[in-house]
Amino acid sequence: MTARRSIMLGALAAPVLLRPAAAQPAAAPAPTQAPGFHRFRVGSFTATTIWDGFATRQNPGTGWVVNADTAAVDGALRDAMLSTTSLANPYIVTFLETPAGLTMFDAGTGGQLVPTSGGMMQNMAAAGLDPARVTRILVSHFHGDHITGLTTAQNAVVFPNAQVFVPEAEMAFWGDTANEGRAPQAQRGTFANVARRFGPYGQRVERFAAGAEIMPGVRAVAAYGHTPGHTAFHVSDGNAQLFVTADSASRPELFLRNPGWASVFDIDGAAAAATRRSLFGRIASERALMTAYHFPFPAVGRIAPMGEGFRFFPADWSSAL
Amino acid sequence: MTARRSIMLGALAAPVLLRPAAAQPAAAPAPTQAPGFHRFRVGSFTATTIWDGFATRQNPGTGWVVNADTAAVDGALRDAMLSTTSLANPYIVTFLETPAGLTMFDAGTGGQLVPTSGGMMQNMAAAGLDPARVTRILVSHFHGDHITGLTTAQNAVVFPNAQVFVPEAEMAFWGDTANEGRAPQAQRGTFANVARRFGPYGQRVERFAAGAEIMPGVRAVAAYGHTPGHTAFHVSDGNAQLFVTADSASRPELFLRNPGWASVFDIDGAAAAATRRSLFGRIASERALMTAYHFPFPAVGRIAPMGEGFRFFPADWSSAL
Repeated sequence: MTARRSIMLGALAAPVLLRPAAAQPAAAPAPTQAPGFHRFRVGSFTATTIWDGFATRQNPGTGWVVNADTAAVDGALRDAMLSTTSLANPYIVTFLETPAGLTMFDAGTGGQLVPTSGGMMQNMAAAGLDPARVTRILVSHFHGDHITGLTTAQNAVVFPNAQVFVPEAEMAFWGDTANEGRAPQAQRGTFANVARRFGPYGQRVERFAAGAEIMPGVRAVAAYGHTPGHTAFHVSDGNAQLFVTADSASRPELFLRNPGWASVFDIDGAAAAATRRSLFGRIASERALMTAYHFPFPAVGRIAPMGEGFRFFPADWSSAL
Repeated sequence: MTARRSIMLGALAAPVLLRPAAAQPAAAPAPTQAPGFHRFRVGSFTATTIWDGFATRQNPGTGWVVNADTAAVDGALRDAMLSTTSLANPYIVTFLETPAGLTMFDAGTGGQLVPTSGGMMQNMAAAGLDPARVTRILVSHFHGDHITGLTTAQNAVVFPNAQVFVPEAEMAFWGDTANEGRAPQAQRGTFANVARRFGPYGQRVERFAAGAEIMPGVRAVAAYGHTPGHTAFHVSDGNAQLFVTADSASRPELFLRNPGWASVFDIDGAAAAATRRSLFGRIASERALMTAYHFPFPAVGRIAPMGEGFRFFPADWSSAL
């Protein structure tokens, strides 16, 4: 030991800096990102969030929050160490494996909305989630980024063995073209897209009521406002619980920190704000786990009250499940 | 369109709940976690954090923070939505690809410390990082979880083409057994482990001085206290920068929020606290990207002042690099 140490320290007599490395480096392979899935437990259930991609919002301080000025929104972005010139709006789908089979919450974009979306199938494969194993799709609401992935660009069914469960209040609104005048101009294409995406599932589309137990361990939680029937889901197994909050809040640095801020995508901003306060208040007080569709990936964590709103705490990633 | 919609809505006349799924689900494969690597850019450089594993600390409120009582530490854990009975201490190694080759910061545990560590090689493979391509290993300090991975359990070299760069203040301390009396009892094995792990690299171990430019774009930043020569690294390419902070703070929910808290692993708690305030103060004021060895994976983000300390903001994960 002493001899070895002497030899070693002898070699270290003088700092040698900027010496060329011992070997010429081999060419580096093109860098890739890790597969976009994140796995975690909810009691005896296994959950997975899957990255479908993202849209980029330029100048997020303008035109997104309808009841706060650009200075206020930019301030919230800066406070959260985010850019005020460009912000990613992620699309993240939650999956749940239970004794009743494989359930998914919303259906992704199908890669049919923006070029930076559509990674869901590849990331499902990496996670060992076969679309043919999906037996239930629980839909939170009918905006295009949540239902377009039900079918291909040619409108073929993507999940051949799935029943599709939809909030009856959501279907009551978007299933009736008489409501077109009540929808913002920019969302009127939703009526046609609803017919197009659910049509191929025919008899396998089923409506559920607010508060209903849709399957063992999963209950609907009315979270209206973002859309007329927007619904969150409460998963429980024993004492373990998970809230799948969908679009109850978009990016947490804005809409969780400021539950009163209304998004341009909220059909009823005041109702959406009331939902945020009650739903996230419940999640915070129960210290429950939650996922969200537009939070930063992997979009799994807990929340606590902070100021007038809430702060998001991402759950620890672990190799151990 | 109208016909299709009528058919669809006809099928939806009544909510049907708890009906058995259409198909019997196929068996689910055993769930796995995604590979533990995270890739991001620092200017024209490519960085990767690699998960080597974790140790579990039971009752983290006791015996870890030496100058705060259990109630205070438990309070900080609860405030961060963490458990007071069990907390993971992750091991995360940062890699940097530059025109000068592949550099790694610290060497992981080699799977020789706890059964839940040692995933580095597998995760490097998933990330396309060949150990033979590593040309430089920059060592922050000599605690076992940072240098044991330099060699196998049989003490064979793991990185055959790497030069190993060490802080001269760190080698001055741990390279001289006359200092054993100045090290905490629990850390005295470090002297022998230093000789054992660096020995096989022989002439390829080189010392660097505080503040030195070790390679183009990477400079040593003295961050003494945790150990006598503990060093952070400042990476820069144009306006882009990354601080590799190593053990300047362990779990951020404790030691970043409370920079004055001393860890039982800090050899000089007061110096470590002063380092935390100055180093993280600089990182916060420059809104710079940082990595840390024991932060929650992927351990990449930014920080901002909060109360008496700092808050960590994980960087967005993205499929786009």
